[in-house]
Amino acid sequence: MAPKNAFLYTLAIVLASLYIAAADPDILVDYIVPRGATNVTADYFTYTGLRDIIEGATPKNFTLTIVSMIEYPALNGQSVSYAFLQFPPRSVNSPHSHPRGSEILLLLSGRLEVFLVDTDFKLFTKTLEKGEMFLFPKGLVHYQYNNDPKDPATALSAFGSANFGRVTLPETIFITSVPDIVLAKSFQTDIATIQKIKNGLVGSNGLN
Amino acid sequence: MAPKNAFLYTLAIVLASLYIAAADPDILVDYIVPRGATNVTADYFTYTGLRDIIEGATPKNFTLTIVSMIEYPALNGQSVSYAFLQFPPRSVNSPHSHPRGSEILLLLSGRLEVFLVDTDFKLFTKTLEKGEMFLFPKGLVHYQYNNDPKDPATALSAFGSANFGRVTLPETIFITSVPDIVLAKSFQTDIATIQKIKNGLVGSNGLN
Amino acid sequence: MAPKNAFLYTLAIVLASLYIAAADPDILVDYIVPRGATNVTADYFTYTGLRDIIEGATPKNFTLTIVSMIEYPALNGQSVSYAFLQFPPRSVNSPHSHPRGSEILLLLSGRLEVFLVDTDFKLFTKTLEKGEMFLFPKGLVHYQYNNDPKDPATALSAFGSANFGRVTLPETIFITSVPDIVLAKSFQTDIATIQKIKNGLVGSNGLN
Amino acid sequence: MAPKNAFLYTLAIVLASLYIAAADPDILVDYIVPRGATNVTADYFTYTGLRDIIEGATPKNFTLTIVSMIEYPALNGQSVSYAFLQFPPRSVNSPHSHPRGSEILLLLSGRLEVFLVDTDFKLFTKTLEKGEMFLFPKGLVHYQYNNDPKDPATALSAFGSANFGRVTLPETIFITSVPDIVLAKSFQTDIATIQKIKNGLVGSNGLN
Amino acid sequence: MAPKNAFLYTLAIVLASLYIAAADPDILVDYIVPRGATNVTADYFTYTGLRDIIEGATPKNFTLTIVSMIEYPALNGQSVSYAFLQFPPRSVNSPHSHPRGSEILLLLSGRLEVFLVDTDFKLFTKTLEKGEMFLFPKGLVHYQYNNDPKDPATALSAFGSANFGRVTLPETIFITSVPDIVLAKSFQTDIATIQKIKNGLVGSNGLN
Amino acid sequence: MAPKNAFLYTLAIVLASLYIAAADPDILVDYIVPRGATNVTADYFTYTGLRDIIEGATPKNFTLTIVSMIEYPALNGQSVSYAFLQFPPRSVNSPHSHPRGSEILLLLSGRLEVFLVDTDFKLFTKTLEKGEMFLFPKGLVHYQYNNDPKDPATALSAFGSANFGRVTLPETIFITSVPDIVLAKSFQTDIATIQKIKNGLVGSNGLN
Repeated sequence: MAPKNAFLYTLAIVLASLYIAAADPDILVDYIVPRGATNVTADYFTYTGLRDIIEGATPKNFTLTIVSMIEYPALNGQSVSYAFLQFPPRSVNSPHSHPRGSEILLLLSGRLEVFLVDTDFKLFTKTLEKGEMFLFPKGLVHYQYNNDPKDPATALSAFGSANFGRVTLPETIFITSVPDIVLAKSFQTDIATIQKIKNGLVGSNGLN
Repeated sequence: MAPKNAFLYTLAIVLASLYIAAADPDILVDYIVPRGATNVTADYFTYTGLRDIIEGATPKNFTLTIVSMIEYPALNGQSVSYAFLQFPPRSVNSPHSHPRGSEILLLLSGRLEVFLVDTDFKLFTKTLEKGEMFLFPKGLVHYQYNNDPKDPATALSAFGSANFGRVTLPETIFITSVPDIVLAKSFQTDIATIQKIKNGLVGSNGLN
Repeated sequence: MAPKNAFLYTLAIVLASLYIAAADPDILVDYIVPRGATNVTADYFTYTGLRDIIEGATPKNFTLTIVSMIEYPALNGQSVSYAFLQFPPRSVNSPHSHPRGSEILLLLSGRLEVFLVDTDFKLFTKTLEKGEMFLFPKGLVHYQYNNDPKDPATALSAFGSANFGRVTLPETIFITSVPDIVLAKSFQTDIATIQKIKNGLVGSNGLN
Repeated sequence: MAPKNAFLYTLAIVLASLYIAAADPDILVDYIVPRGATNVTADYFTYTGLRDIIEGATPKNFTLTIVSMIEYPALNGQSVSYAFLQFPPRSVNSPHSHPRGSEILLLLSGRLEVFLVDTDFKLFTKTLEKGEMFLFPKGLVHYQYNNDPKDPATALSAFGSANFGRVTLPETIFITSVPDIVLAKSFQTDIATIQKIKNGLVGSNGLN
Repeated sequence: MAPKNAFLYTLAIVLASLYIAAADPDILVDYIVPRGATNVTADYFTYTGLRDIIEGATPKNFTLTIVSMIEYPALNGQSVSYAFLQFPPRSVNSPHSHPRGSEILLLLSGRLEVFLVDTDFKLFTKTLEKGEMFLFPKGLVHYQYNNDPKDPATALSAFGSANFGRVTLPETIFITSVPDIVLAKSFQTDIATIQKIKNGLVGSNGLN
Repeated sequence: MAPKNAFLYTLAIVLASLYIAAADPDILVDYIVPRGATNVTADYFTYTGLRDIIEGATPKNFTLTIVSMIEYPALNGQSVSYAFLQFPPRSVNSPHSHPRGSEILLLLSGRLEVFLVDTDFKLFTKTLEKGEMFLFPKGLVHYQYNNDPKDPATALSAFGSANFGRVTLPETIFITSVPDIVLAKSFQTDIATIQKIKNGLVGSNGLN
């Protein structure tokens, strides 16, 4: 491109230096070495942070343990990551989407109701048994519910991105300072209803 | 990969024939010719469907006119598309995300409040004047509101995908048959509130 | 790869640090934060630089206003950008191509003749009316001409890249110091004709 | 491109119709519907084929159960897949690489020695405990060994491709009809040694 | 996305079936098998079409022999191709660009002047000796000239795409039916000069 | 994604700064300028390192000269590279794969036997004559052998990546410190045979 003057051209080069494109595509090296590292050992490729959690007792609330490139830096550039999900009885993983990766959930214990909604509002629902899988395509809204009154459920999810992202919808919609009138119009309801939902979610971090 | 027997191998080849990877990356030809077409003319590269809409009166409700590869087949493989947005006074484009493309909204007339929420629940909001732009990154929740009591607003949006997709959240969450209890737990509210929202949205198509 | 000695291996790592792959693919974060920024606000996602231009009078010459990641840094990693085109009567946007993105031109006012040539020298031409669009696929030569003797034309173009690039052909070919004989042979003409064209383009910046 | 004559041009279009680019990048739809399918149900997104295997007894030999887009067609275009690995005592998953996807192995039971070799012949080795993970980057040689004399080990692997592929090296090298002399020179040994290895691998399918 | 009615949705699915995304990215199989082929042999991976040309006498005019996926179908999905270039004395490969792939030219015999122009009209020129290489980045204008009065030159070029494309500029600009006035304005010259160039190029196929 | 606390969020941003995604996809600039370079000249696009080798005598052992972005930095981001292969009589390029790029080998002199094995252990073999090509798809095992007792062979290979990588299998498998028992089980042979091969390869660098 031919910028109008040299200033813009210089700026372009400076910007190209300042911004780093942290991309998910194929990398040009075997693996990305942490900047400044003089020696990579087997520990770099190992992740032990899930060990105690996978063995531990089910927590009281739904708990999501993400193992992405943030927690496990060797995943950078490898386009894959994990999450571990623990559902106590009657708990829910509230509606959310992953902007950067599809998910295959594998149920490890218990039973689990799964819900997937496509962009045409079509719902796909299933009750998974232990050892069964369900696919949640990238960017689509989905949730899970452990409807059992006594038994917990646990699941492992694989993602096709090293940093899949999570848009947790109740909190994304209702705990920001978007004006009540905008939400009321969006949900075609009254302001009192919006405020009731907002109040219930105050303090939630979207991940229990 | 070495499938365990010839049957799976054959199946793999058959599947590779049956499934078409409709992908957004660079294509290997100048443009994709419709199958069976014997002659491509300038009409193939032209789209006239927005002409009357862009000139017409503002409709009574918020109206979204999408110009993606579905409406404009020549866009297939070109990674770009448009939408035209018309906001009568006090109307809202309810919270939604685009799973396959980022959006730059350019305000053509009126004033418009825009809302963007990132995956950490951080809200970015701005009141755009005519001729100003706002970026909504791929997969993130955003909405717009024309807060003016009398004047309409119109905007044009460009997308970095030929088929960006739209997850309209109120309807995606509340007009499917997901059990009330799952939604009540997700939004940390009671079933009556969920039912109230559901009833208000019955019949909505997410696009007014 | 197994370089022949440790020196090359070290060099490879050093190079991997020195070169930044500024790529257009999906990013691994919601948006790219400028290096060193401690706080991102809504202003980062807003671009106001087109406001006065879109409202202003048509300039005397064809004028192209690019809104890419150079002018609007938030676009980095989002694979989309804009340009605004102003055509006074009888003005031309001379033949050019965009190496990194396809373009959809939307005519906002006036009438405009558009020309697209594919790699087999096939010309596609159309006279656009207000509100109509035309697609110029990535890398192909195209131009536009406002043939009206009195009325200006304005257009908005969306691109499927955050930095689409522009190869402006008259200047790219004729204002460099490539020897006249090479150009004469390329265009199968004489040196005097080449010199005549060169002289006419002296001082042109390709964007008027 | 401008082919030299119309025949090649026609051939190009015909080839573009005959060949299907089964690619791993982002798809342009929510999910890929099987050709000819008139209705997609939740069963399409569900995979039950691993249920009995994950619950069953450890087989006598190392056993690999792949869950890729071949076995689970909904994965097409979603860039993620699974495999389940069962290691009886003293069994090995012989050296191999995956040409199309990186792998994160998560140990579900037992202990497991893992080996990764980069392109500079550097070995990374670790003994994993239950609940620990190890990354095998795309295209690099790796293997695993259950060194325990009595206890089996089981693992789950996630891959960043819907069809990661598996190049099983002993069989790929030694059970084809490549001449003995070529192998002997490659491994810098004698023909008798090559023949001995070949004979031992006759009938192996690379996956036990 | 939520189309306004079922008709558009059906149309979208039909279109997704009709259009084939012939993409350059990673494929999901080892290699793409021609549709309908029941057996792939070594001949599929072999290309012999260059054998006689590379051995033959230098033709009278500049001659370009392309070996892309059109001529060598196995290249489909492999992102690489070749071309062979023969320059008799004083011959030129006229200015052109490749929309889909970068090129590394390797000079096999003779001497060759190469010209590369970036999007800021900056010229890079070099006289290559036998065994030397020059890079022409994707989408940028470049040309070559054999300035020797007696000796031919031959070169081999590798491309980072299976179908790199070629926009040959003299013909792309001057042998279509774009009106003379548009070209005259673009090149800031008079119509007589445009007509002179046009007449000289009549009948050229851009590849001699 | 919503990390559980601000610490992780900060860490994510820090990591995003520390890790560089050196990717092979399209770049957002004409070419990548070396960091700190104030002026790019034609020398940057030129590579002369192969000149003397291509002209020189055939070495005593098989010799591979790689021209990737490590040796030729301008290739970064251009997705293409070269290698030059010299085969004295009876020499072999031992079995290997390229994790990041497909290869087209073009035989420049002599005759050469080529071997390609797909992931189903199917062997494709051919004896190439001068001027013929063979494709080795990305990630698949292949090798070449000059079976002539007197004449050398030379070949040029083009790769669809700027840094294709090379996994040389004899050394990758047998010169690391993987325990003999693991290799013996993998190759279904005895430890003595493994040790014999290991001893033969001691000191090999995989590239002679």
